[in-house]
Amino acid sequence: MGLIVQKFGGTSVANTEKVMNAANRVIDTYKKGNSVVVIVSAQGHTTDELIDKAMEINSNASKREMDMLLSTGEQISIALLAMALEKLGYPAVSLTGYQAGMYTDSNYGNARIKSINTERIFKELDKKNIVIVAGFQGINKYDDITTLGRGGSDTTAVALAAALKADLCEIYTDVDGVYTADPRIVMNARKLKDISYDEMLELASLGANVLHNRSVELAKKYGVNMVVRSSFNKDEGTVVKEVDSVEKMIVRGVTRDDDVARIAVLGIEDKPGKAFQLFSLLAKENISVDLIIQSIGREDVKNITFTVSRTNLNKALDTINMNLGLLGATEVKYSDKLSKVSIVGAGMVNHPGVAATMFEALYDASINIHMISTSEIKISVLIDAKDAEKAVNFIHNKFKLDQIVE
Amino acid sequence: MGLIVQKFGGTSVANTEKVMNAANRVIDTYKKGNSVVVIVSAQGHTTDELIDKAMEINSNASKREMDMLLSTGEQISIALLAMALEKLGYPAVSLTGYQAGMYTDSNYGNARIKSINTERIFKELDKKNIVIVAGFQGINKYDDITTLGRGGSDTTAVALAAALKADLCEIYTDVDGVYTADPRIVMNARKLKDISYDEMLELASLGANVLHNRSVELAKKYGVNMVVRSSFNKDEGTVVKEVDSVEKMIVRGVTRDDDVARIAVLGIEDKPGKAFQLFSLLAKENISVDLIIQSIGREDVKNITFTVSRTNLNKALDTINMNLGLLGATEVKYSDKLSKVSIVGAGMVNHPGVAATMFEALYDASINIHMISTSEIKISVLIDAKDAEKAVNFIHNKFKLDQIVE
Repeated sequence: MGLIVQKFGGTSVANTEKVMNAANRVIDTYKKGNSVVVIVSAQGHTTDELIDKAMEINSNASKREMDMLLSTGEQISIALLAMALEKLGYPAVSLTGYQAGMYTDSNYGNARIKSINTERIFKELDKKNIVIVAGFQGINKYDDITTLGRGGSDTTAVALAAALKADLCEIYTDVDGVYTADPRIVMNARKLKDISYDEMLELASLGANVLHNRSVELAKKYGVNMVVRSSFNKDEGTVVKEVDSVEKMIVRGVTRDDDVARIAVLGIEDKPGKAFQLFSLLAKENISVDLIIQSIGREDVKNITFTVSRTNLNKALDTINMNLGLLGATEVKYSDKLSKVSIVGAGMVNHPGVAATMFEALYDASINIHMISTSEIKISVLIDAKDAEKAVNFIHNKFKLDQIVE
Repeated sequence: MGLIVQKFGGTSVANTEKVMNAANRVIDTYKKGNSVVVIVSAQGHTTDELIDKAMEINSNASKREMDMLLSTGEQISIALLAMALEKLGYPAVSLTGYQAGMYTDSNYGNARIKSINTERIFKELDKKNIVIVAGFQGINKYDDITTLGRGGSDTTAVALAAALKADLCEIYTDVDGVYTADPRIVMNARKLKDISYDEMLELASLGANVLHNRSVELAKKYGVNMVVRSSFNKDEGTVVKEVDSVEKMIVRGVTRDDDVARIAVLGIEDKPGKAFQLFSLLAKENISVDLIIQSIGREDVKNITFTVSRTNLNKALDTINMNLGLLGATEVKYSDKLSKVSIVGAGMVNHPGVAATMFEALYDASINIHMISTSEIKISVLIDAKDAEKAVNFIHNKFKLDQIVE
């Protein structure tokens, strides 16, 4: 018996059948004597449909009005889930972000939670109600509706779990946990029993679309015990927790990220401050840069090569081309037919030779490496996109990730 | 220059083109230097679609959750209209019922407005914003969302006009005013320049679906000047105001109401209290009774005939049949192939002979009258549904309603 926060994503409440299914999962937990707070996302493609409606009228609508519009998606979901619970004979009450005391800043479209007034939720829990809270939304000091941006419902769930001092925060989704690699491309990928916050953060940012980074950061900050599991089966899922208690595997997973493009700026004058100029130009345009390599070219010039997300490629090229003179560069090259393949594992830092093993796997597969980047808990390589699936499989096998190593 | 409240119904904002059209109507008023507060209903069939969603999950959902669900329809509309105004270059801000200070009682699904806190609206008007308020919704003392029931957006508009002391409340709809008869069945029906609150109340309850009664009652109570006009043309519409200033026509309109069924309870014991018993049984089931006739049958029995709405027919019959013994009645008959045709006019009370003229028109048309009911400002007859169109036309011509009589 305890206080459990459960979050159901859009695919888990996409239609009547799935709403009833989610209701039954909630009831399983409630019947064991737990207090249950449920966070729900908008049904299936509701958010996209609302965005389409807005675009038809005004492709440049204010973010305040977009939030007013989009927040209805979650409001529909909470009402429907409450009705499903009523139908099954259980007491439920739905709450909008405002009613649940979710106070945010005024950064419409990407607001941050500032404080949570838990009074109403606790009052409803005291009445033995199952409390259903709209994910993704809050209210600012002007009483205006805000939304939290991508992954917002995960953030709502973790923030509420922290504020309510919940015993567990369960994230129900359409995958049944975190895997050593994407099961769609690695046949013997294995579901992890648990994973550390830091590993999960690296995996999330490397393209394992299970949890959004902001929610994991928040869980780490407040020590919230999370578990990621499927809403469509009863498997145990993957627990996300502190590093010291996770399985003792050096490498925890292999990921592939195709949203990557490489830009090479050639023939830059070899003078101090040129790299700084280049990257501050890109920062001004809100373009994030990932891997960076600087190499010496012929004579007194240097080449700077870096990666950006594919969506930012054109904007980055335009920015650089408009400033070629300022940078004293001669030529810009690019490629968007690349993938970033990475391994992640908190134990890596104490195990030299991990990088060598990874490169050996790629050599075995005859795959050429374009760029390399390492951090304490991950190693990334940039390779041709056509080789990515093969690379992930060879690396997965090389580290024997299908086997549990104690 | 003044403060104008404008209300756009669901058909007036049903799609992108109509939202832009409504935005342009708002701007016309704003450009003249007026402060403008706009009330919007849910788009087209949104409310029905949300009800269908709910029914699929739980046909007996709590009214609180229904209100949580249905209120999203208006929230979508206000955001879209605000975006349309932004697109056209005008400053707009949308407000939910809660943000607009609409406080109601807790009668979910059919709530009454208790008070309006106009602070936020005036603050936005001071900033020269066009203020767009979600119709049909409010919030109760628990911070829970309520809806006002049928015609709720009209009620929101009139209540806001009263609270803001607006100079005018314009109701934009898909008809361009109040007519002497339904223009779809009477070719020479004439649009009225103005009509009194009381006449409008009778017309509304008699089947002229232009304004909901609650909004007219409220307008009468607070002396709100209303005008009903089309959102699709620039015609002047019909002004609804105090009786003393309206056109001097004895009969203002002829209406037809098909939502009527007749029940005859025969052979009731002729003892005191039997009629009371019958109608209190029906009242307990929330069945409203309209016309009533009591007649003496053979020997010591009486017959009671009355009308109910068609939707209540079966429930009424069941209730009576289960209590035949209690009522000491022998037989129940019914018909649902009837129409109620009525004439309305505040001047009627001072003009004897109006009823006779109406009956003469029906005699001219060889139409048999089943029941008659009169009040100070209306006369209703129950006739066969197949005769209704003919009856309305004959009466309309008899009173020369196509001509303006000064």
